[in-house]
Amino acid sequence: MVLDEQWFTEIDSDDSGYAMSLKIKEKLHEERTPYQLIEVYETQTFGTLLVIDGCVMLTSRDNFLYHEMMSHPALFTHPAPKRVVIIGGGDCGTLREVLRHPGIEHVLQVEIDERVTRLSERFFPELCTANTDPRAEFHFDDGIAWMREAPAGSVDVIIVDSTDPFGPAEGLFGRDFYGNCARALGNEGLLVQQSESPLLHLEILQSMHREMHAAGLGHRRILNFPQPTYPSGWWCATLAGKHAGALEPRWEGIDTTALDLRYYNAAIHRGALACANFMDDALKR
Amino acid sequence: MVLDEQWFTEIDSDDSGYAMSLKIKEKLHEERTPYQLIEVYETQTFGTLLVIDGCVMLTSRDNFLYHEMMSHPALFTHPAPKRVVIIGGGDCGTLREVLRHPGIEHVLQVEIDERVTRLSERFFPELCTANTDPRAEFHFDDGIAWMREAPAGSVDVIIVDSTDPFGPAEGLFGRDFYGNCARALGNEGLLVQQSESPLLHLEILQSMHREMHAAGLGHRRILNFPQPTYPSGWWCATLAGKHAGALEPRWEGIDTTALDLRYYNAAIHRGALACANFMDDALKR
Repeated sequence: MVLDEQWFTEIDSDDSGYAMSLKIKEKLHEERTPYQLIEVYETQTFGTLLVIDGCVMLTSRDNFLYHEMMSHPALFTHPAPKRVVIIGGGDCGTLREVLRHPGIEHVLQVEIDERVTRLSERFFPELCTANTDPRAEFHFDDGIAWMREAPAGSVDVIIVDSTDPFGPAEGLFGRDFYGNCARALGNEGLLVQQSESPLLHLEILQSMHREMHAAGLGHRRILNFPQPTYPSGWWCATLAGKHAGALEPRWEGIDTTALDLRYYNAAIHRGALACANFMDDALKR
Repeated sequence: MVLDEQWFTEIDSDDSGYAMSLKIKEKLHEERTPYQLIEVYETQTFGTLLVIDGCVMLTSRDNFLYHEMMSHPALFTHPAPKRVVIIGGGDCGTLREVLRHPGIEHVLQVEIDERVTRLSERFFPELCTANTDPRAEFHFDDGIAWMREAPAGSVDVIIVDSTDPFGPAEGLFGRDFYGNCARALGNEGLLVQQSESPLLHLEILQSMHREMHAAGLGHRRILNFPQPTYPSGWWCATLAGKHAGALEPRWEGIDTTALDLRYYNAAIHRGALACANFMDDALKR
């Protein structure tokens, strides 16, 4: 069967042979910024949909999976996270999750395209409820350049919540950037970065781990989670640190009772760290 | 963008607003049996694709996820599984996984449509390598009727590897069938059944668990796993038994070194049992 114009379709890439489609009620917005093409749709069953350069960024219905997994595992791993930097993250969903943690003192979000944040405030207000938190600071600029200037040891957790490794985000997957992250992080510091689909993009994952290793982030673990509106529905993030102990979660300290979460709990955290045999083989950790 | 005729598309259901597509090289086979319409395609990147009544059954590339998770967790949970019955499973991938376990003495596969198995032998020979194992017995008949006549306490593990709960498979999700399974299982017996997408089909999962409970399968656990070519890419199976201890895996007994698996290991097993908060809330286990 051929889908008609009532569907938004994302083809993962020219040669992946995989596509995902959501039925659309109406297009709410379209705008070309200096960085990218942004579209917002109202879908039939997934709520509001944000698309950048043809790729699904998030839907109202399932973004909780990604945003919870980009924030809580890292924050329950670092021994005492206080200073967080989010690179990208313009929709503010990750920021909201980070600020659920009372121990956080300051979150700087460095997003290159201010329009993503302004449109998120308009179309996804539920993701932006923490934007006025006095601990949140917004810096609309290039995260790669920002990290180059970041003072050594000034950050506890860096969260790279970016688009795929093409276009403006490409440099966020390279050795220079990781080296600057390693410098900005203290010895207990952690980097967590979205790292694509284990089934479809294993080569990107391998490349990221090689570059991280070469840049001084000698230890890495993968967090697997479902993300139905991303290609294959199976996504992962990579946690990276300077020593193995830095990646060991504070199991006894995981208390989510006050956090009001829909996906994450301690068992989910432990489960997310389990990797398929083929991934262990490919990454030889 | 609109996909052209070079793509096979499955719309999850009329009102789900979600579709997944695979790019096709050619259609290899099409046949209408007394039970269903079967199609086989060669895809661009997912190998061979089996479709029944418009729904993806499996691809060469990612079926290992489903087949490993439908078999190994249950077989590493029952204390000493020897007698297995597979209801459905016509592609023989689950059968192959079960027969990797040397302790298994007999597997009866009750598949209603012999043509599924014959076509799998032709188009998916790698899934049928255990079909000539002397421990395997094939019975091409209605699994619902077969279970009605099964002797009490005659089966250790029942694996329901069926299509979705519509058409010929509908009765496999109801109280009468579960009651007959409960009778056929011994006190330590286990039922494992594919139970759809936690995100898209939570109501089916809730209904299954209610019916199982009412039929004497008083304890249930969910196994989550990725399955990229099923709707949402996030799938699950339900394990059901008569007492809580029957669902506790033999953690110390999980040895997969001789099994040659691509996904399953003890950590994956443990992780699969972790459920999202929203699932725990919905199922009130």
